[in-house]
Amino acid sequence: MSDLPSRVEIHEEGPREGFQIEPGPIPTADKVKLIEALSETGLTHIQACSFVNPRLVPGWADAEAVVEGFKPVDGVHYTGLYFNGNGFDRARKYLGKLTLSGSISLTASEGFTKKNLNRTHAENLAGMRRQAEAHLANEIPVNRVGVMAAFGCNYQGDIAPSQVIKTLQDGMQIAEETGAKITLFSLADTMGWAAPHRIEQVIGAVRDRWPEMTLSLHLHDTRGLAVANAHAGLKMGVSRFDSTVGGLGGCPFAGQPKAAGNIATEELVLLCEEMGIDTGVDLDNLIEVGRLAEDIVGHQLPSELLHAGSLNAFRREALH
Amino acid sequence: MSDLPSRVEIHEEGPREGFQIEPGPIPTADKVKLIEALSETGLTHIQACSFVNPRLVPGWADAEAVVEGFKPVDGVHYTGLYFNGNGFDRARKYLGKLTLSGSISLTASEGFTKKNLNRTHAENLAGMRRQAEAHLANEIPVNRVGVMAAFGCNYQGDIAPSQVIKTLQDGMQIAEETGAKITLFSLADTMGWAAPHRIEQVIGAVRDRWPEMTLSLHLHDTRGLAVANAHAGLKMGVSRFDSTVGGLGGCPFAGQPKAAGNIATEELVLLCEEMGIDTGVDLDNLIEVGRLAEDIVGHQLPSELLHAGSLNAFRREALH
Repeated sequence: MSDLPSRVEIHEEGPREGFQIEPGPIPTADKVKLIEALSETGLTHIQACSFVNPRLVPGWADAEAVVEGFKPVDGVHYTGLYFNGNGFDRARKYLGKLTLSGSISLTASEGFTKKNLNRTHAENLAGMRRQAEAHLANEIPVNRVGVMAAFGCNYQGDIAPSQVIKTLQDGMQIAEETGAKITLFSLADTMGWAAPHRIEQVIGAVRDRWPEMTLSLHLHDTRGLAVANAHAGLKMGVSRFDSTVGGLGGCPFAGQPKAAGNIATEELVLLCEEMGIDTGVDLDNLIEVGRLAEDIVGHQLPSELLHAGSLNAFRREALH
Repeated sequence: MSDLPSRVEIHEEGPREGFQIEPGPIPTADKVKLIEALSETGLTHIQACSFVNPRLVPGWADAEAVVEGFKPVDGVHYTGLYFNGNGFDRARKYLGKLTLSGSISLTASEGFTKKNLNRTHAENLAGMRRQAEAHLANEIPVNRVGVMAAFGCNYQGDIAPSQVIKTLQDGMQIAEETGAKITLFSLADTMGWAAPHRIEQVIGAVRDRWPEMTLSLHLHDTRGLAVANAHAGLKMGVSRFDSTVGGLGGCPFAGQPKAAGNIATEELVLLCEEMGIDTGVDLDNLIEVGRLAEDIVGHQLPSELLHAGSLNAFRREALH
């Protein structure tokens, strides 16, 4: 079952995930500083902000100022997250500086769709069809189907692999109807339910059905299993991951204020490096940026590697 | 290569690892309280204290008072750690309340042996031979060969799997000379160098050479990979683990004061449960004990699961 990728593409979401959940307020200049520091680590994909309703997510009320503020580095793709037409319109103003690509974003849990998005799965499908059409009408490609709560849900419990397949099929149906060319499936463990065994089952089922599709995992370390889940995913051929430097972020669902955030980018990079998988990231540089992130948010972040440091200095010394 | 055990035996070392490294002072009564609370979780092996030099480890100056203080629970084996004849003599006074069994404890890194034990590997072998003889002369079985720094060392860098094999052979040689019957190999990632790939290599080499031996892993989460390493070990047939509730402990080597401790028992239990492996532990009860441990040490512990809580309550609610 092992199908290890030779290279992994990491999508850094620390700024977006972190600043949306930190109590703050965090100065715009600090957000810009973190994005610019991340840009020098070898990361090539950075989600820089979220174009969401500032009443709902006050931490991103300054999304425009952040995008205008940072100096982009050649070869790095910057993105912004948005959920609806209004967010799409805000993001489009920065087309060029931001890389825009559409996503058909669904949820494997009807309970979560209702609680989080306040709509039924059918209503969500209709909304995603309209959003895909809006992207394509603006010549922005739609190449991704995303499934949230793909491994379990606080509102619905365990999610069967067959439910993930069904949700992806719904997404592919929208793609067919709208003419979107899907090359990527992204599966999110939105509430930290995944375990390695479940990762193997779900990824196995998805690969059986769509063997040519690039697969991405969005993992949260809510219950400490994120790195083990990433390892299971790598062994199943997953070649893209979302992550956050320092493990920025959290779990805004169901009252878990002290819960950890996403899988920490530096721990993912260490895992890949030790397995001989290229990420393009300078680990020691990234760890320094993680420490900057701690300074910015003003408290210790969950990443353990951040506090211990990498093995590189020990290895260099051991040669003498 | 998968050889999943149906049951895993967990050796809880939270009291010993935790109280040796916490700045303290921690009242004896609190240590006793933690040991008694752990005894009600379904754990059957608890390392309750360390008989070490109180000048070197002031946190365990009250080892005797702790052993005398706790009320043992039937079916739970309590142990104390010791390194030399003096510690052995102190522990023997509690034979009955404490389960004593000898270990031939070696290190795969000569650099670590010199730095940590202030002796050469050859001197350590001689010391371990004497210690095995002392145990057997007192009718205390010696059934374990332990190897510290089995996956890497801050003082010597990466450790080759062949070096682990060689160290185990040294231990088996002592066993043959002294008449000790070895049934268990314990491999320790003392300084947090292991990664899943390395676990597979080392455990694979050991299993090839000694297919019948029970294998145990002692993992530290220094760089965030402990749960992934445990998962790799389980898949290679490892059926015993040391761990600490809440992730108590730390890394006393090479100045890493903020480094995480051992793999957290509750995260190991969750991993096993999700894989269908029995541990005998009540996870929600154990999480409560982890929160007690946080109260006792007076700061947040590294375990993420401790802060998020298990999936059990969500699963129960989802049934309605």
